[in-house]
Amino acid sequence: MTRLLTASLLVATAAIVAADEGMWTFDHFPGGIVQEKYGVRITDPWLDRLRQSVVRLETGCTGSFVSAEGLVLTNHHCVNTCLADNSTAERDLVADGFMAANRDGEMRCQGSQASVLVDTEDVTPRVTAAIARVAPAEAATMRNQTLTRLESACEEAATKRGAPLSCEGVTLYQGGEYWLYKYKRYGDVRLAFAPEQAIAAFGGDPDNFQFPRWCLDMALLRVYENGKPAATPTHLNVNWNGAAEGDPVFVAGHPGTTQRLMTVAQLKTQRDLVLPFWLIRYAELRGRLIQYSKSSDEAERTAMDYLGSIENTIKVRRVQQLSLLDDRMTAQREAEEQKLRAAVAADPSLASARDAWDTIAKAEQRNRDIHIPWVWLEGAAGFNSDLFFYARQLVRAADERARPNAERLREYTEGALPRLRAALEAATPVYPELERVKLSFSLERMREYLGPDHPIVRAVLGTKSPDERAEELIGGSDLADPAVRMRLFDGGRAAVAASSDPVIALARQVDAESRRLRTIVENEVEGPERVAQQAIAQARFKVYGTDLYPDATFTLRLSYGAVQAWVESGTRVEPVTRLDRLYERTTGAPPFALPMRWLDARERLDLSTRANFVTTNDIVGGNSGSPMVNAAGDIVGLVFDGNIHSISGSYWFDTEKNRTVAVHPQFMRVALQQVYRVEPLARELRIPAR
Amino acid sequence: MTRLLTASLLVATAAIVAADEGMWTFDHFPGGIVQEKYGVRITDPWLDRLRQSVVRLETGCTGSFVSAEGLVLTNHHCVNTCLADNSTAERDLVADGFMAANRDGEMRCQGSQASVLVDTEDVTPRVTAAIARVAPAEAATMRNQTLTRLESACEEAATKRGAPLSCEGVTLYQGGEYWLYKYKRYGDVRLAFAPEQAIAAFGGDPDNFQFPRWCLDMALLRVYENGKPAATPTHLNVNWNGAAEGDPVFVAGHPGTTQRLMTVAQLKTQRDLVLPFWLIRYAELRGRLIQYSKSSDEAERTAMDYLGSIENTIKVRRVQQLSLLDDRMTAQREAEEQKLRAAVAADPSLASARDAWDTIAKAEQRNRDIHIPWVWLEGAAGFNSDLFFYARQLVRAADERARPNAERLREYTEGALPRLRAALEAATPVYPELERVKLSFSLERMREYLGPDHPIVRAVLGTKSPDERAEELIGGSDLADPAVRMRLFDGGRAAVAASSDPVIALARQVDAESRRLRTIVENEVEGPERVAQQAIAQARFKVYGTDLYPDATFTLRLSYGAVQAWVESGTRVEPVTRLDRLYERTTGAPPFALPMRWLDARERLDLSTRANFVTTNDIVGGNSGSPMVNAAGDIVGLVFDGNIHSISGSYWFDTEKNRTVAVHPQFMRVALQQVYRVEPLARELRIPAR
Repeated sequence: MTRLLTASLLVATAAIVAADEGMWTFDHFPGGIVQEKYGVRITDPWLDRLRQSVVRLETGCTGSFVSAEGLVLTNHHCVNTCLADNSTAERDLVADGFMAANRDGEMRCQGSQASVLVDTEDVTPRVTAAIARVAPAEAATMRNQTLTRLESACEEAATKRGAPLSCEGVTLYQGGEYWLYKYKRYGDVRLAFAPEQAIAAFGGDPDNFQFPRWCLDMALLRVYENGKPAATPTHLNVNWNGAAEGDPVFVAGHPGTTQRLMTVAQLKTQRDLVLPFWLIRYAELRGRLIQYSKSSDEAERTAMDYLGSIENTIKVRRVQQLSLLDDRMTAQREAEEQKLRAAVAADPSLASARDAWDTIAKAEQRNRDIHIPWVWLEGAAGFNSDLFFYARQLVRAADERARPNAERLREYTEGALPRLRAALEAATPVYPELERVKLSFSLERMREYLGPDHPIVRAVLGTKSPDERAEELIGGSDLADPAVRMRLFDGGRAAVAASSDPVIALARQVDAESRRLRTIVENEVEGPERVAQQAIAQARFKVYGTDLYPDATFTLRLSYGAVQAWVESGTRVEPVTRLDRLYERTTGAPPFALPMRWLDARERLDLSTRANFVTTNDIVGGNSGSPMVNAAGDIVGLVFDGNIHSISGSYWFDTEKNRTVAVHPQFMRVALQQVYRVEPLARELRIPAR
Repeated sequence: MTRLLTASLLVATAAIVAADEGMWTFDHFPGGIVQEKYGVRITDPWLDRLRQSVVRLETGCTGSFVSAEGLVLTNHHCVNTCLADNSTAERDLVADGFMAANRDGEMRCQGSQASVLVDTEDVTPRVTAAIARVAPAEAATMRNQTLTRLESACEEAATKRGAPLSCEGVTLYQGGEYWLYKYKRYGDVRLAFAPEQAIAAFGGDPDNFQFPRWCLDMALLRVYENGKPAATPTHLNVNWNGAAEGDPVFVAGHPGTTQRLMTVAQLKTQRDLVLPFWLIRYAELRGRLIQYSKSSDEAERTAMDYLGSIENTIKVRRVQQLSLLDDRMTAQREAEEQKLRAAVAADPSLASARDAWDTIAKAEQRNRDIHIPWVWLEGAAGFNSDLFFYARQLVRAADERARPNAERLREYTEGALPRLRAALEAATPVYPELERVKLSFSLERMREYLGPDHPIVRAVLGTKSPDERAEELIGGSDLADPAVRMRLFDGGRAAVAASSDPVIALARQVDAESRRLRTIVENEVEGPERVAQQAIAQARFKVYGTDLYPDATFTLRLSYGAVQAWVESGTRVEPVTRLDRLYERTTGAPPFALPMRWLDARERLDLSTRANFVTTNDIVGGNSGSPMVNAAGDIVGLVFDGNIHSISGSYWFDTEKNRTVAVHPQFMRVALQQVYRVEPLARELRIPAR
């Protein structure tokens, strides 16, 4: 499982609860159910400590403080980009792993940011009142402007108090609630420890989302303030014996996106248009990247991180597609929809929700009409290149910063700019040859989908082939240099207008049409849907009560469950793996080849050591790196994946088969103590001597 | 559009007629409708002459005799493999085209065969009686054995008469009818003329299945007998002025596969399982091949033909998937099904059909369970390699030929062996580097889908990576040599058993499990479905009468229609293109670069010459190269494609938008006479002097 799964439509919803289902907000955790089912009493101090110990990694993962000096436990796959960005042809940190000799040796992850949620504030009345004042077509814009104003005021107040915060507007329950989430943000994140990819992702893509597994998918980061390790007095302890079958466990983290209560019309857009499009696109890109990787060791090294994320996405979307093609699921969702619609029809106080489903269906028709051009231009699928990504941000930032804050596109508000600046400033490597592969591919496919006679295609390609044009763009651009980017960023509109960089020129060339498509989607799809979804959400509260959890939104959530086997095609899948089978499964050829250190260590390890295990918790991409804690609040597992059935968790929770996959602390202990022998970290983590 | 579209499930069905719909058998052509609608009286002599002039190219295309000396007009894309097989690094016939200086210079297309339908015989009573004697699980086997016996008797009788024929069992109307089709077969097919690919497929994959178009997708073959041009006194004339808007036109050819009256359960297997699988698979393969093609000119040249077929298939399956995801279509098909079921329920004489739909739905469930392993092993998706293809045929031919003819797998009966022998004997080039790319890809994906712990995956890969194993297999095999293949073929079981060729060993290694899966599909899916489909077909005849056309089965059909525009998003698409826009559209970069000959010729050509045009005829892949004739029976167009809406013709006929795309004779005339100046062929084709 990769970090946060991006989805083309982010819709927060609510669901009715069964079994260990739900990614609950901390203010609304179903303690009663947990006490009844598992005999564990969840207290406010327990929740507070956990909340203050959980870290959101802005690249799309979770982590947790595990020492008083800013040490963060997360997944190897959450630091993979950091390892790749710091590697060179001579020193491949992804393959070799990284162990800082001491704190001075800890390695900066450029562009990484870590956030801790310190406070939340319900702003539902203010946002809904603002939306109610405008027509549906303007609802999306009004919501955005209102949230931007609230965020700015929140940040200004915090700065005045001398404790700066990053404030983010959060939409829960499809607009049933609006909140401000207030984060303390760390902009200096460094890597202390990461094992070799071969053990962290043992089994590679074939084993991804599978179980049984034997992955040491762990890494240790440290957050710094003012050049020193941050003080984190509130943090979690690791219980090095870890969890055993039947133990109740809790996962705190930042699940990215679920779509459990999209209407059927919205789900069908995903089924018919969005998923098939991305699957075909990513499958071809995978093929190109794999074949490109075979051209040289350096090609393989530089493409690996991106290829891994593509492969992960393909696996996810493939199972999502299967889920949505299951007509039994569609029928169930249609029945739920009919039931709620009947209740709405029978209740005069819910009159505003009556047309909501039809409104959404109509908006989805518009969405379907426009999705393909939208995705190539505004979705930038036609310009798959890091340099284009920089160029678009520079072009738009220049235009947007010339406007009043509340009128800007959401990603260029004052609150959002620090993150943008950090991304532009970071000296992350750009690999020109890889850029050409990606860009040529996307230009060629854009021409296929929009047609060679589409005005944008003609304007972008002229009489050149995709290869020629990609060569010209990537070869002629200086945007790989952070200093060049920052000059353009700081120089604003004048600097961007004066730039002769061909990629900047490209971004300028397509911007008007891209923005036009974005506006259509905002005004004719998102706006009407937002109003309709809010009406449905309120109807759902009225009909079913408020014991509901919202869809995942990459904000802090808590799920409960237990270590538990499941039955696959009539066979019980044991819930815990041990080191013995890791060695039995080693072939010597990637992705089943063990690093030398692990081959050497075999004789001195206890092969009954627990490796990975599964639990019934409800999680999704973005939960990677989440601490899994026991009733005492101590870490007894490190979440890194779900089983194959967890993928359909995007749409529903399969109680029987959906499982979370975690690294067992015993595995981490033998790794740190007996294989890598990183004594100072072992001491800081309070691992008992052997 | 490529030649015949292969589909994993071949099911013949019948449909109710509207508009210009239908791919009719010659014995059942709706002359009355045509006379009424177009005022054209179709006579038996007209039909006979056409039937005798139409040629089936066994590689999946159609052609027609256009002179008394065996000259065959077909598409360039139907001879693309012949051009590629005869090319070398020094002489690229695909790029340069081919023009025989004289008859001696005509170039053999290795392995190509051409067939003319000389007679047909209805054998329905014998086949249905045989099937009725066995249980449903044995129905598929019994049908196969019965058809094999009938074919053998037919061929023996023809040989005794001194006029050998190739007899093929044909299933029409989902088993409503069984026929023997008797062909005169030509095993010596040579190429006389083909233009450069750049003009034959101008616009390449982006323009494939699009219109307007400007493709000179023509080629001229000649069939030989005893080393001399075959005498073909019955042939077609070309009307060099060609068709004009509104003209009634008729297309005779061999449409490959349609699935217009599959049950909803069968369609959903296509929608949910078959199409998503192939789309993802081919999209990745496309990416690998494109990237591989960039590695050298020779890689590009040797991969181009295969890549083109993959790209064509992707486009077809993508639109097929969109068609099946259109719930309106599903609803319409469900309604039709319900209507027929209601009629069956009300008619005691149709009692045998009552459970037919449920039987099929149950069989489809079994099909779904087993499809993935089936497709990797028996479908050979895991062994994507020409050498494996040879190896499997050699291994199986050896085993099957040791059995009585009627008990063999259908592709190894005495009737089928000549075609197999021709394929094994043909000195078609094998490109080892391309083989490794394809085989490594398929081994890697088989491991992903079946899992690294699947017994076959472990047996096939051992501890090696897919790249290592592909290298070992392709590098170690001698099967690229036709002499080696023929020694194994002629040597039978002993020779195959004694072979140490690693690809032969691989084919032996997976054969038991592959056959096991095949048997399950035959006995538990195809058998019960065949019986049920036959019952449905008979019910359909009873309820709707017999004015129905069968689904396409790569057998001779005739469709009617007219040259006609259509309306796309509110805009009329003109039905005929001219040369002027071909030149306007040229960019200089492939696939929009014109060959030098055409650039040079520009000044001397009449740019109002008609290039391509569209008609309302109902066709499908396999019709490529079909003659389009007028009321007089003269050729007024050369079918080479359909528009994008024609792809959903697999499932239904869209009267408003489905269009056939053809090359206009005026285009062929200027090409032969003014651009290529092939005087002897122009004379043989009776092109009037300018």
